[in-house]
Amino acid sequence: MPPPPASLLEAFPTPSRLPLVIEHIAEEFTSQCPKTGHPDFGTVTVRFGPAAAGTPHSERGCVELKSLKLYLQSFRTEGIFYEAVTDRIRDDLVGLMHPVWLQVVTNWKGRGGIRSIIRAEHGDVPAHWRTAVEGRSL
Amino acid sequence: MPPPPASLLEAFPTPSRLPLVIEHIAEEFTSQCPKTGHPDFGTVTVRFGPAAAGTPHSERGCVELKSLKLYLQSFRTEGIFYEAVTDRIRDDLVGLMHPVWLQVVTNWKGRGGIRSIIRAEHGDVPAHWRTAVEGRSL
Amino acid sequence: MPPPPASLLEAFPTPSRLPLVIEHIAEEFTSQCPKTGHPDFGTVTVRFGPAAAGTPHSERGCVELKSLKLYLQSFRTEGIFYEAVTDRIRDDLVGLMHPVWLQVVTNWKGRGGIRSIIRAEHGDVPAHWRTAVEGRSL
Amino acid sequence: MPPPPASLLEAFPTPSRLPLVIEHIAEEFTSQCPKTGHPDFGTVTVRFGPAAAGTPHSERGCVELKSLKLYLQSFRTEGIFYEAVTDRIRDDLVGLMHPVWLQVVTNWKGRGGIRSIIRAEHGDVPAHWRTAVEGRSL
Amino acid sequence: MPPPPASLLEAFPTPSRLPLVIEHIAEEFTSQCPKTGHPDFGTVTVRFGPAAAGTPHSERGCVELKSLKLYLQSFRTEGIFYEAVTDRIRDDLVGLMHPVWLQVVTNWKGRGGIRSIIRAEHGDVPAHWRTAVEGRSL
Amino acid sequence: MPPPPASLLEAFPTPSRLPLVIEHIAEEFTSQCPKTGHPDFGTVTVRFGPAAAGTPHSERGCVELKSLKLYLQSFRTEGIFYEAVTDRIRDDLVGLMHPVWLQVVTNWKGRGGIRSIIRAEHGDVPAHWRTAVEGRSL
Amino acid sequence: MPPPPASLLEAFPTPSRLPLVIEHIAEEFTSQCPKTGHPDFGTVTVRFGPAAAGTPHSERGCVELKSLKLYLQSFRTEGIFYEAVTDRIRDDLVGLMHPVWLQVVTNWKGRGGIRSIIRAEHGDVPAHWRTAVEGRSL
Amino acid sequence: MPPPPASLLEAFPTPSRLPLVIEHIAEEFTSQCPKTGHPDFGTVTVRFGPAAAGTPHSERGCVELKSLKLYLQSFRTEGIFYEAVTDRIRDDLVGLMHPVWLQVVTNWKGRGGIRSIIRAEHGDVPAHWRTAVEGRSL
Amino acid sequence: MPPPPASLLEAFPTPSRLPLVIEHIAEEFTSQCPKTGHPDFGTVTVRFGPAAAGTPHSERGCVELKSLKLYLQSFRTEGIFYEAVTDRIRDDLVGLMHPVWLQVVTNWKGRGGIRSIIRAEHGDVPAHWRTAVEGRSL
Amino acid sequence: MPPPPASLLEAFPTPSRLPLVIEHIAEEFTSQCPKTGHPDFGTVTVRFGPAAAGTPHSERGCVELKSLKLYLQSFRTEGIFYEAVTDRIRDDLVGLMHPVWLQVVTNWKGRGGIRSIIRAEHGDVPAHWRTAVEGRSL
Repeated sequence: MPPPPASLLEAFPTPSRLPLVIEHIAEEFTSQCPKTGHPDFGTVTVRFGPAAAGTPHSERGCVELKSLKLYLQSFRTEGIFYEAVTDRIRDDLVGLMHPVWLQVVTNWKGRGGIRSIIRAEHGDVPAHWRTAVEGRSL
Repeated sequence: MPPPPASLLEAFPTPSRLPLVIEHIAEEFTSQCPKTGHPDFGTVTVRFGPAAAGTPHSERGCVELKSLKLYLQSFRTEGIFYEAVTDRIRDDLVGLMHPVWLQVVTNWKGRGGIRSIIRAEHGDVPAHWRTAVEGRSL
Repeated sequence: MPPPPASLLEAFPTPSRLPLVIEHIAEEFTSQCPKTGHPDFGTVTVRFGPAAAGTPHSERGCVELKSLKLYLQSFRTEGIFYEAVTDRIRDDLVGLMHPVWLQVVTNWKGRGGIRSIIRAEHGDVPAHWRTAVEGRSL
Repeated sequence: MPPPPASLLEAFPTPSRLPLVIEHIAEEFTSQCPKTGHPDFGTVTVRFGPAAAGTPHSERGCVELKSLKLYLQSFRTEGIFYEAVTDRIRDDLVGLMHPVWLQVVTNWKGRGGIRSIIRAEHGDVPAHWRTAVEGRSL
Repeated sequence: MPPPPASLLEAFPTPSRLPLVIEHIAEEFTSQCPKTGHPDFGTVTVRFGPAAAGTPHSERGCVELKSLKLYLQSFRTEGIFYEAVTDRIRDDLVGLMHPVWLQVVTNWKGRGGIRSIIRAEHGDVPAHWRTAVEGRSL
Repeated sequence: MPPPPASLLEAFPTPSRLPLVIEHIAEEFTSQCPKTGHPDFGTVTVRFGPAAAGTPHSERGCVELKSLKLYLQSFRTEGIFYEAVTDRIRDDLVGLMHPVWLQVVTNWKGRGGIRSIIRAEHGDVPAHWRTAVEGRSL
Repeated sequence: MPPPPASLLEAFPTPSRLPLVIEHIAEEFTSQCPKTGHPDFGTVTVRFGPAAAGTPHSERGCVELKSLKLYLQSFRTEGIFYEAVTDRIRDDLVGLMHPVWLQVVTNWKGRGGIRSIIRAEHGDVPAHWRTAVEGRSL
Repeated sequence: MPPPPASLLEAFPTPSRLPLVIEHIAEEFTSQCPKTGHPDFGTVTVRFGPAAAGTPHSERGCVELKSLKLYLQSFRTEGIFYEAVTDRIRDDLVGLMHPVWLQVVTNWKGRGGIRSIIRAEHGDVPAHWRTAVEGRSL
Repeated sequence: MPPPPASLLEAFPTPSRLPLVIEHIAEEFTSQCPKTGHPDFGTVTVRFGPAAAGTPHSERGCVELKSLKLYLQSFRTEGIFYEAVTDRIRDDLVGLMHPVWLQVVTNWKGRGGIRSIIRAEHGDVPAHWRTAVEGRSL
Repeated sequence: MPPPPASLLEAFPTPSRLPLVIEHIAEEFTSQCPKTGHPDFGTVTVRFGPAAAGTPHSERGCVELKSLKLYLQSFRTEGIFYEAVTDRIRDDLVGLMHPVWLQVVTNWKGRGGIRSIIRAEHGDVPAHWRTAVEGRSL
C-alpha cells in the first residue's frame, strides 16, 4: 500500500518575526500493524519553531490545520511500525516547513502490557521543550 | 471588523524594585474563526517580568486586571486566527508595559480531533518559566 | 487601616550547618480588595534557604509556624492589592530572617474569569526551585 | 533457578539517521522476593537513544517489542532483589543494543508502608530526560 | 526520651559499578510535637546515589529496607520538630552509607491551615533530582 | 435582540423501537448577562429518551447534532439569565422532539466566588439518570 | 456581634411552572470560631426546588445571586459554630423563598486532622439529590 | 459497504448457575461518519447478565473476547451513525447470547464542541447498573 | 494495655429540631497490630443523624470535635484489630450520643498488597448515605 | 496443574452482633491465560456481610487476611479464565464463611484494547453496595 501522500499537507506564512512555538496534538490517531493488520491507536504531538517571517522558508512556515488532519487520517489504512510513523511525520513536516526545530512524539496505547513512546527530532530542539513534553506524556 | 482596541488596556506602576513575576490566566476566552465564523474557545495565559520600579517604563509596568478583562472580551466578535490572536496580545501588551520579558500562551480546545497551543515571547524569557508553562498545558 | 504588624513574626535558630530548604504553604489566605472591599482568597507559599547555623543571622534563621499563621491571619481585615501583599510578605520575612534566598508566591482565585499568580523573590533563588513552584501552581 | 535468558531478546535495525528516543513502559511486571518468595509487583520503564542508522551497532539498535515482553515475563518465577532486577535489565539491553544512552527505572509497589524506585543508567543520559522521568514517577 | 537509635539501620553492598539512584518513600510516617505532644503525620522520602561498587564505603552502600522501616517507626513515640526529624534522618543515613549524594524530604500534613515541606541535602545533589522532587510534592 | 430561533433545530427519526438514551454535552457554551453585558460561560447537557420508533412523534424523535450546535451558538450574542437559558432550551427541544423525558443541565463557571447549576426537566425523568448527572456535575 | 442580616437576601420570581433545581456553590466561605477567634474556611452549597410559577411564594421563589454573595460575606467577621452556620443559612433561605425543598451542605477544611461536613434540610429532599451531593463532597 | 458480519461473534457456555455480571470495555473503537467519511472515535461498553447455566441459551451465554475484538474492529471501515452503531451492537449481541439483560453504551469524542453518549438496552436492566455506568461516563 | 477511655468523649446539644447529618473525617488515624506491634494507618469516618432538639438524648446529641480528636489519638498506642477498632468507635459514640443512626467506616492502607475497608452501623442508616460513602472510599 | 487449595483459607469469629460490611481489595492479583500461558493482571475485590455473632457460622464468619493473601497468590501459576477465577473465589469464600451476602469483582487490565470486569454474587447483595462498587471500577 503506498505511503500517505505528503502532498496532502499545506502551509501558510509565518505571521511574525518574533519567536513563536506552535504545537498541534492529535489524540485520535490510528494506523495498522504491518505484521498482524491489527489497529494501533495513539496520540501524535507535533511541536516546532517556525521559520521567522522575513527568513527563507517563512512563506511556508506553518502547517495548515485541516491539511494536517487529512494527512494524519491517511495513515488509517496503512500498515506501518511505530518508529516509521514517527519518522515519516517528521520528514514530511520538515520537508514542508523547514522549521528552525521540530519534534514529533507518538504515544501509543499498550499492547500486551507494554506501551511505547517514540520521539523524533529535527534541528536543535531546546532542552526545556523536550523536558516539558516528557512530563506530559502520562 | 476593526481589531480589538489596544487602548482598552490600562497600566499601573510596578510596585517594587525587586524582581517580580506576574501571571494572569484567562480561562474563558473566545474569538471566531475568520473563515467559518464558528467560535473558538481557549485559555490565554500572560506572564511577564515588569519593568522594575525606578527604571524607565515602570510607571506603566503592570497591566490593570479589569482593563485586561475588557480587552480580552473584545475578541468575542472578532474573526481572527490562533496565531494572530497570540501575536496581537503580545504586541499590545509589550506596547503597553515594555516589560523585561513577556510570554503569551494560547491553549485552544480541539477542532476535528486536533487541539493546538501557540506561544509568543518577547525579550529573554528565562528557560525555567517556559518549561513550567509547558508542564501545565494539560 | 494600619498594615499587619510584622512584629507578629517570630523566629528560631537554624538547626543545621548543612543546606536546608523550608517551605510553608498557607492555603486559607484571605485579604480584601482595597477598591471594592470584596474579599480575595488565595494560597501563599513561602520557600527559603535559611542562614546556615554558624553564620550571621542564623539565630533568627527560621520563621516560627504559629507566628506565621497569626501574621497571615492579620491580612483578613486589610484592603491591599495582590502585588502589595506579595511584596509585604517578602519584605517582612526577609527583615525577620535574612535568608540566603526567599521566594513568595501568591496564587489567587479568579475574579471575572481571570486568575492571577504573583511571585516575589529575594536573593539568588536557584532556578530549579522556581521551576518546581511553577509546575505546581495549578 | 537460572536467570532469565537474555537470549530471549531480539533487535531490529534503527530506522533513522536522525535522533530518536524510544521508551517502553511495562506496567505489569512481577518477580519474587528471593528471601520470602512473596511476589513483587512494579512498573519497568526502559528509555534509550538507539545507535543511529549508519553507525556501528545500528543493525541491532532497537529491541523488538514482543521479545521484550517475553523477556520481562521470564522474571515471573525468579527470586531477585529490586536492585538486581534493575541492573540485569540494563546489562541485558545494553548488551543487545549498544545504545548511545539507556535508562531503566523500576517503580515498585509498597511493602510495609515503604515503596521504592530504582534507576540504573548507561552512557550519558541527558539531564532533561532524567528530570522528566522523575516528574512522572508518581 | 532518647532519640531513635541509628543502630537500627542496616546496609548491604552496592550491587553495581554503574550509576544507580535509589529512592524510598515512606508515606506512613508519624512523630510527635515536642511542645504539645500531638501527633504529626507526613511522608519521608529518601533519595541517594550510593557509593559505587569498588569504591570505599560501597560495602555498606545501600540501606536495607526492613531496617529502614523499623528505624522510621522508632520516631512514633518521639517528640521532635520537623526540622530536627529531617536533619536526624539525613545524618543517620549519611553516617550509615556515606553516599555520593543524599536528599531527605519530609512533607507534613497541615496544622492550622499551613502545611510544610523540609528538605535536607548531603553532597552535591544533581539539580534535576531536586527539581523532580519538588514537582511531586503535591 | 430577538431570541435564538428554535427553527434552527432539526430532527431525524428515532432509529429503534427499543429503549434508547441520548445525551449531548456542549462544553463551549457562552451567552451574556442581560444586566451587565459580560459574557457567561458554561456547559449545557441535554439528555432524553426519544419517542420510540412506531409511536407518535418518532419521525422527529432525535435532534440533529449540527443543528443543535448552531442553535446553541445562537445564544452567543444574547443577554439572558441562567434560568431562562435552561428553560428556553428545554422548551425548544421538547417542542421539537416530544421526547418521553428530557433533562437540561446548565453548569456555569463562577462569578464572584459562586458557581451555579440549573436543571430543568420534562416528563418523568428516571431517578437514576438524575442521580448520575449530579454525580458528574463536578 | 449581631448576626448576619437575612435582610441582605433578595429574591426574584420563579421563571417556570415546570420543575427546576437550582444549586449555588460558594467555595470561598469564611467565618470565625466563636471560642478561639481563628478563621474557619469552607464551601457552602445551597440546592433547592423553587416554588413553581403560579403557586404561592413563587414571586420570591429564587434567591438573587449577588445578594446571596453579600449575605455569605457577612459571616466573615462573625464567630459562629459549623452547625449554627448551616442552620442559619437554611432558616434564612427558607424564610426568603419558601421552596418546595432545600438542602444546605457546609464542607469545612480540616482542623487538627479532622474535617467535617454538615447538612441541613428543609422539606422532602429527593433521595437522589442527597446521594449526589454526598458523592461530590470530596 | 456491507455491515460488519455478526457471524464474527462467537460464544461459550455460561460457567455458573449463580448470578454473574460481565462487562467488556473497548476504548479504541473507531467507525466513520456516513456523510463526511471522517473518522469517529469512542468507547464501547457492553454489560450483561448471561443466561445462567442450566437455562436455555446458556450454551452460548458469554461472548468470546477475541471474537468481540474482531467484530468491533470490523466497524473501522464502515460509515454508520452513532445511534446505528449502538443499535447494531445491541442487536448482534442479543442475537448471539440471549442474555437476561444487556446494555450497550457508546461514548463518543467531541465534534464541533459537542460530545455524545448513546445507550441502548435489552431486557430489564437493573437500575443500579444504569446509574453506575452513568457515573463513569466521564 | 487498657482500651481508649470512652470518657474522653464529650457532647453538646443538637442545635436544631430539623434533620441534620453530621460527618467527621479523621484522615490521620493510627493504631497498632495486636500480633506484630507494627503500626496500622487509616481514615476513620463517622457519620450520624443526631437526636433532634426536643427529643430524649438531644442534650448530648453531637460529639464535640476536640474530644473526638483526643479520643481517636488514644488508639495510637493500642494493639487492636481493624474490626475491633470499628466496633469500639461505633459503640462508644452510640453510648455517648444515642443518635438516630450512625455509621463508622475505617479505610486502612494496604498490607501485603491487600487493603481493607470495614463498616459498622447503628440504627436504620438511609441507603443513600451508605451508597455515598462507598463511592468515596477510593 | 491442580487448583489453588481452598484449604489455604482461614477464618475467625465475627466480632459483633450488629451489621458489619467487610471489604478486602487485592490490587496485585495475577493468574495465567489457560490458552496462551500469558499472564493476566487484575484487581480482586471481596465484599461481604459476615454471619452475625450468635448466629450459625459466625465462628468462621470472617476470612483471615494473611490466609487470603496466600490463597490469592496461589493463582499465580494457574491457567484459568476470568470467569472461572471469579467463580472459584466466590465458591471458596462462601464455603469458608457462609456469609449473609458476598460479592466478588475481578477487574482485569486490558488485552487487545478491551478490558473486562466480572462480578459474581452470593445471597441478597444490597443494591447500594452493587452500585457503589460499579462507581469505583474505574
